[in-house]
Order: sequence, then structure tokens, then C-alpha cells
Amino acid sequence: MNPHASEIMGLRSYPSITAIPEPVDYVICGVPAPVVPTIVRDCAVARARVLAIFTAGFSETGEEPGITMEREIVEIARKGGVRIIGPNCLGVHSPAAGVFLEMYIPETSGRVSFLSQSGGYARQFIAAAAEREIFLSKLVSYGNAADLNEADFLEYFTEDSDTAVIAAYVEGVREPRRFLAALREASAAKPVIILKGGNTEAGGQATMSHTASISGSKYVWEALCRQTGVVQAHDLEETADTIQAFGSFKRPRGRRVGIVGIGGGVSVVAADDCENAGLVVPLFPAELRGELGTFTSIAGTSLRNPVDTSAEVYWDEAALARTIDLVARWGGIDIMFIILNAVATIRRGVDTLRRQGEAVVAAARRTEKPTVVIIIAGGIEAAEQMARVVGKQCVRAGFAVYPSCYRAARAVDHVIGYYENWERRLSAGAEVISG
Amino acid sequence: MNPHASEIMGLRSYPSITAIPEPVDYVICGVPAPVVPTIVRDCAVARARVLAIFTAGFSETGEEPGITMEREIVEIARKGGVRIIGPNCLGVHSPAAGVFLEMYIPETSGRVSFLSQSGGYARQFIAAAAEREIFLSKLVSYGNAADLNEADFLEYFTEDSDTAVIAAYVEGVREPRRFLAALREASAAKPVIILKGGNTEAGGQATMSHTASISGSKYVWEALCRQTGVVQAHDLEETADTIQAFGSFKRPRGRRVGIVGIGGGVSVVAADDCENAGLVVPLFPAELRGELGTFTSIAGTSLRNPVDTSAEVYWDEAALARTIDLVARWGGIDIMFIILNAVATIRRGVDTLRRQGEAVVAAARRTEKPTVVIIIAGGIEAAEQMARVVGKQCVRAGFAVYPSCYRAARAVDHVIGYYENWERRLSAGAEVISG
Repeated sequence: MNPHASEIMGLRSYPSITAIPEPVDYVICGVPAPVVPTIVRDCAVARARVLAIFTAGFSETGEEPGITMEREIVEIARKGGVRIIGPNCLGVHSPAAGVFLEMYIPETSGRVSFLSQSGGYARQFIAAAAEREIFLSKLVSYGNAADLNEADFLEYFTEDSDTAVIAAYVEGVREPRRFLAALREASAAKPVIILKGGNTEAGGQATMSHTASISGSKYVWEALCRQTGVVQAHDLEETADTIQAFGSFKRPRGRRVGIVGIGGGVSVVAADDCENAGLVVPLFPAELRGELGTFTSIAGTSLRNPVDTSAEVYWDEAALARTIDLVARWGGIDIMFIILNAVATIRRGVDTLRRQGEAVVAAARRTEKPTVVIIIAGGIEAAEQMARVVGKQCVRAGFAVYPSCYRAARAVDHVIGYYENWERRLSAGAEVISG
Repeated sequence: MNPHASEIMGLRSYPSITAIPEPVDYVICGVPAPVVPTIVRDCAVARARVLAIFTAGFSETGEEPGITMEREIVEIARKGGVRIIGPNCLGVHSPAAGVFLEMYIPETSGRVSFLSQSGGYARQFIAAAAEREIFLSKLVSYGNAADLNEADFLEYFTEDSDTAVIAAYVEGVREPRRFLAALREASAAKPVIILKGGNTEAGGQATMSHTASISGSKYVWEALCRQTGVVQAHDLEETADTIQAFGSFKRPRGRRVGIVGIGGGVSVVAADDCENAGLVVPLFPAELRGELGTFTSIAGTSLRNPVDTSAEVYWDEAALARTIDLVARWGGIDIMFIILNAVATIRRGVDTLRRQGEAVVAAARRTEKPTVVIIIAGGIEAAEQMARVVGKQCVRAGFAVYPSCYRAARAVDHVIGYYENWERRLSAGAEVISG
């Protein structure tokens, strides 16, 4: 729409929304703030259903005339039967519907839907997720949430059959009781992972000027997550880590991990990381250690769990795979962690790591137990590059890949915790707190 | 040394250590375990001072004959006046002395010394540190610590005038009282950062077979760090992050941070991260906001702290620098965090980010206040590559660079905490617990 052009970049342009002959489903508005009320009025006349207002300069300024203007546009919209997304947002992204957040953005559709109060995080999330082969069904960046808010989007994603996992970046909550009820419903239907911004005094102050949101205390939020079964993420990375885990394996039967890798320090810290994340690393029985010992020397290695393979085993894909098979077969573990060390592979080259990745994927496919791949690169450029290549290879084969045991264990704990919480609520038979 | 050759790769070889005519300072031993006692005897005869035993297969196997053999070699060494490093280790790395841990390793000397019970972590640390322009004065990988142990190396690094910062990966502690005293002395003299492996049940089990170490509880270790002023790191990344902070700025005058960046979500989470790490993000006064407001529009941005600059300011290096100057000049903050967003810069290209990096470095040099640079890349390959280039540029200019506010805030808190703890112990006038 443009008052001065009838065609823009080869597309038909109208002087106003009311001049469009067809029914209007979705309007994106990027005009200066003082013109926005007129656009809202036009949308009402044209019976447009939803208006996403990119324009900023409303309540998030904390000043007049923005605050009054925002109240005004909501009033006009409500009277006219138009729903508003924003203002101060990027609106909807739905590859299947051909609606994209912006240009140069992955167009592949997936099964994850994301609601984000921040436009920047929405963009970053789409790009970061795509790097890990996580694609979106729908995303909405909703800014000041003057009309449609987090509860609306959450309810929609709960119902949406194309959405298998819901993730969110939320600053403030407009309707706490309704949001709480929506969280409970959503989390009962599918995994919900939320990154909550502004839970500190300083962060809360920042949400005021970002999206005019009043955020709460972190303790209240933590309690709320426990009660509703929502997975609490602390940054976008943890959000994506957790989505990857939910998408890559079914619920493990328990919390017991079998770990196979190389390197003593790495093994010790891996065991610490697992236990600190609430997982269990049981000592292997003598029989299993005996079987592993038939082809692994015990000098400078360990067969207790973690298995710190000898160099001869680690650099021989068949022996590495045999180690994984033996550990996976033991009834005392529920999950497999395979640690590849790209740092140790720099001199051997990426093909070695690639072959190891193939062997790990093949072995992982021979077991029913959820298997997670960890590729350590330690911030070393050459190793990072190799880890990226082989990480993608494993992700494309359907496995979750993490750069450290710490992140792997945290993601696995989130998955197990989600189902445990779900069961607890189910067996309690009633909701813990009323909506 | 080789019984069958008089020259190896162009270097003179002797049939045994006793055949070497010159005094022997340092012997590296990689012969099979059963031959090691003979080597130790030869070292005693040749009056060699230190023997690093690479060979594994001793007490870390948890079995005979390894356990007895280890006791035996220590007895021989003690009687003969030879000190042992290891067994089951990589020994000493000292670029200044021309002794390297292995081939293909950075040969530059620096001011950090590292003691590592793990050989793999020692290697990984040297490589990862070099990527960040952190170089080592000395490093020792000491494995089973049968003779020389963590207390010896710590005492040495405390005295060593070429060592400004001590870092360590420690599994078990052989002489707890002596180690505690050494920690206290070391930490009073210079920053000490320790990554302690095996503090969980599972991890402790793993240290047994890695280096035959009996590790303790994490609560005891945490209390010990508080008492001695040792900085506790949870992985190698946090270790390097903290070293970088200690090497890049002097003690900040307080905990108050001024944050300049772009993006609402990023700003909110940055404020949360700072406060969660124990830093303070004070609201800017009206005058400062007024000054910033003369060239930054308030629509969709924030001038409260964090400053979430408008796009016009962010993409104009002069305006970005002016923002930094104004914030840095305000007396209410002690530290500056500058957040660059490589994700938002992908389309503009690395030169834009490079120019921003230059502007940030120039502005940071105009203030006395410690300034930390954060470059967000979000795991997106194109952004990561740009962040790596510009990150190195800022590090070479002398500034600490982190990929997230979380990591920056944690490192800064470690630096401030170290000095606070140091002062507290000083003013207490006496040691909290006796050695």
C-alpha cells in the first residue's frame, strides 16, 4: 500500500487498504506512529482481520504521546473487529503460508513454533535454529502486546496440529491468570520451553523500555515453571539445545547414562556434568568391563563409566563402534553419550572425524536407547570447523549434537524433567493451583 | 636415548642415561611400564634432577602390578635424589626453556602458568588459550602425582616471577593441608583459577581410574575456594574467560556496569545476566538520558541502561562511539560492556563489524574504566566467522572479548570477587583456618 504508487517492485499497490478489492487477512504496517490510527481505522473499514504494527514509538517510550496513542489504536481496533499484533514488533512468520518475517530467512517449514516479544531474538532464533536443522512452523514477534498477547499465541500453538514443540521469549505477562492457564494447557499437550527476560531488577527495568512490560521475580517464575511443567531456558542457546533434544529422541526410560569417549579430564568432567544435571552415571559391572577389556588396554584408560577408550580403540571406528554396542546393550543404562574430540583430531583431518561420526550414527541406530553425540572443539578454530561439518552430519542423521557434556546433560535433563513433571501432574489428578 | 641407535632424527642418541657425559636436567620417559624402574635407577646414577614419566599402567589401573610398581619407582627416585613428574602424564611445557609438551604447539611465551592433572586438558588448554592470545609461561601435566604433586607446582608458580596468573585442572589432592596452605599463599600473591574435576560421586569414580585420585565433595571445595580466594571455574572455557579478564583490565572500582548495544531482547537478557552474576546495572540519570536523546530517537529503543541504541546510531560508528563516551564518562558506573551483534551484521559484511570494532576500541581507550566487548554470533556460522575475526582484532588491542553477556559478567565477577576476597582476608588480619 502506498498513496503515490500503483506498482512497487512488480507488485500491485493500492492507495489505501480500503481500496483493496479482495478480502484482507493480514496487514503489516510500517508507517510513522502518528499515521497508525488512520491505518487501524482503514483496516476496520476493510474488515481486515489482523494488523501487525512494526512501527515503534508507543508505550515502550514510557512517555506521551506514545502511551495514549497505543490505547487509542487498541480502542479503534476493538470497535472495528481488527486484532493487533504489536506495535513495536516484526509480526508473523509462517513459511507454509508464504509469510516471512523478513527477507533472507530460511523458508523451510518445521514443527516448532516460537512466540517472541523481541524482534531481534525472533530473527536470531530462526537463523540459529536453521543451523541445527530446526525449522519453524510459525513464529510471532509481538512487541508491546497491546491487543493480542502471549496467552493468545500460546493458546493458538497449543491447538495447532502443525506445532509439536512450543518455544518462547517472554518479557512481561499481560494477563497473568489467563497466561498461567494457557501455560498449563500447553504444557499438558506438548513440550513448552520458555526463556523469560527481565526477571531481575535490572532486566525488569529494561523490559519497561523495550516492550513496556512489567516482568516478575525469578523465584515466582521458577515456581510457576515447576507447577506447569514448562521448561525454563536461560538463553536462546539453551532453548535450541532443548528443542533439539525433544526432536531427536523419545523419552528415556530413566536417568542412567553410559558415556563413551576419549580423554581422562574430559571423562571426569563429563561425569561431573551429568551428575550435576541430575543424571546418574552408574559404575559398569565386572562382566561388561571384562568384555571391553578384551580389546582395550587398561593403562591410562578407564572402563568403569565413562569409558575413556585407549587411543587404539578410539582411532579404529570398528572398535569404537564395538565399545558403543557393548555399553548400549547393558541393561543398567537408559541413555548413551558419545563424546568425539575434534581437538584431538585436528592433525588427522576432518575425514577421520567424519568416519567416526558415521560409525557413531550407525552404532546409535542399532540401539533403542536415546543417543546423544558430543563433539568437543574447545573454541579452537580448526576444531570448530570440523565439529560443525560432522555435527551437521549427525544432526541430519537424526541425532542431537552438543559441544559439551554440560549442554548435553542439561538438555537431556529438561526432556526427562518434562515427562516426569507431566506424570506427576497427571497422577496428582488435579491442578496444583487454580487458574 | 635408545639402546640400538646413536642418532635419531639428526640428534645424538645414547644407549642409556648413564652414558650421557653432560649433567642431565630433565628426562622424559616413554618406555613400557616394566622398564620404568630401570630408567629411574639410571636417572639416580646419572644424577638427573627430574624425570617426567609419560608411561601409564601404574596406580590409575586400580590393579596390581601397577600399584606396587608405582610405589617402587617413587622409592628408588627418593633414595636417588630424583624427582618424578607423573607417571601417566605429558610433563613440562616451557617455551622460554625450549621444552614443549608436544609438536605442533604454540611456542609463544606468556604470563600464565597452568598445572593440569590431565594431559588432554593440558593440550586443549594451550591451543584454546592461544586462540585468545593467551600464552603460557609454564605448564605441567602431572598425571598420577606419585612424587611431585599439585602443592609442589603451586608453590613453584607462586614464587615464579614470570607467572602473573595461575590456572589449574586438579582431580585429587595428595597432601590436603599442604595444598590448602599453598592455595592461600598463591592466591595472596596472584590470581589463581582452578577447575576441579571429580567433585561428584560419578566424577570422583572417574578420577580414580584416570589418575588414581581421591577427589572430595563440591561443597567442601566451594568453601575452600571462598576461604582461600581461589576462583572456581567449572570448565576450561570459564577458566580461559577468567584469565582473559584478569589480563585485560585492572580492578574495577565497583560492580556498576554501563551497557551499550543494540536489540531489546539482547539488552534485557544482558541486564539479567549482569545482575545474576552479582553486578549492578544502575538506571541512567535524566541528564545522561537527555544527552543521549539529542541524537537517539526513543521509539523502540532505550536510554536507561542498557542503552539499546537506535539502528541509525548503531550503524554509524561515530554516533556509537559518542554513545560509549557519554556513558563511560558518567560517574555512576565502574565498568563498560559494549555489545556488538554479528548476527545483525551478516548482510552488511565483516568490514562493517570491523569498523565497529575499531570505533569501540578507540572509545574504550579514551576511558579509564575497564571495558569489555561482547560479540553475539548465536551459533550462526556466518556470524561466528565475523565474530572470530573482529574478536581477535579487539583482543589484540588489549580488550577482553566474550560471545555473551553471561560469560562476560561471570568473568568480571570473578575478577572483582578475587580482589574483594583478598581485601577481606587482608583486613581480617589473620588466616581464617590454620594450615
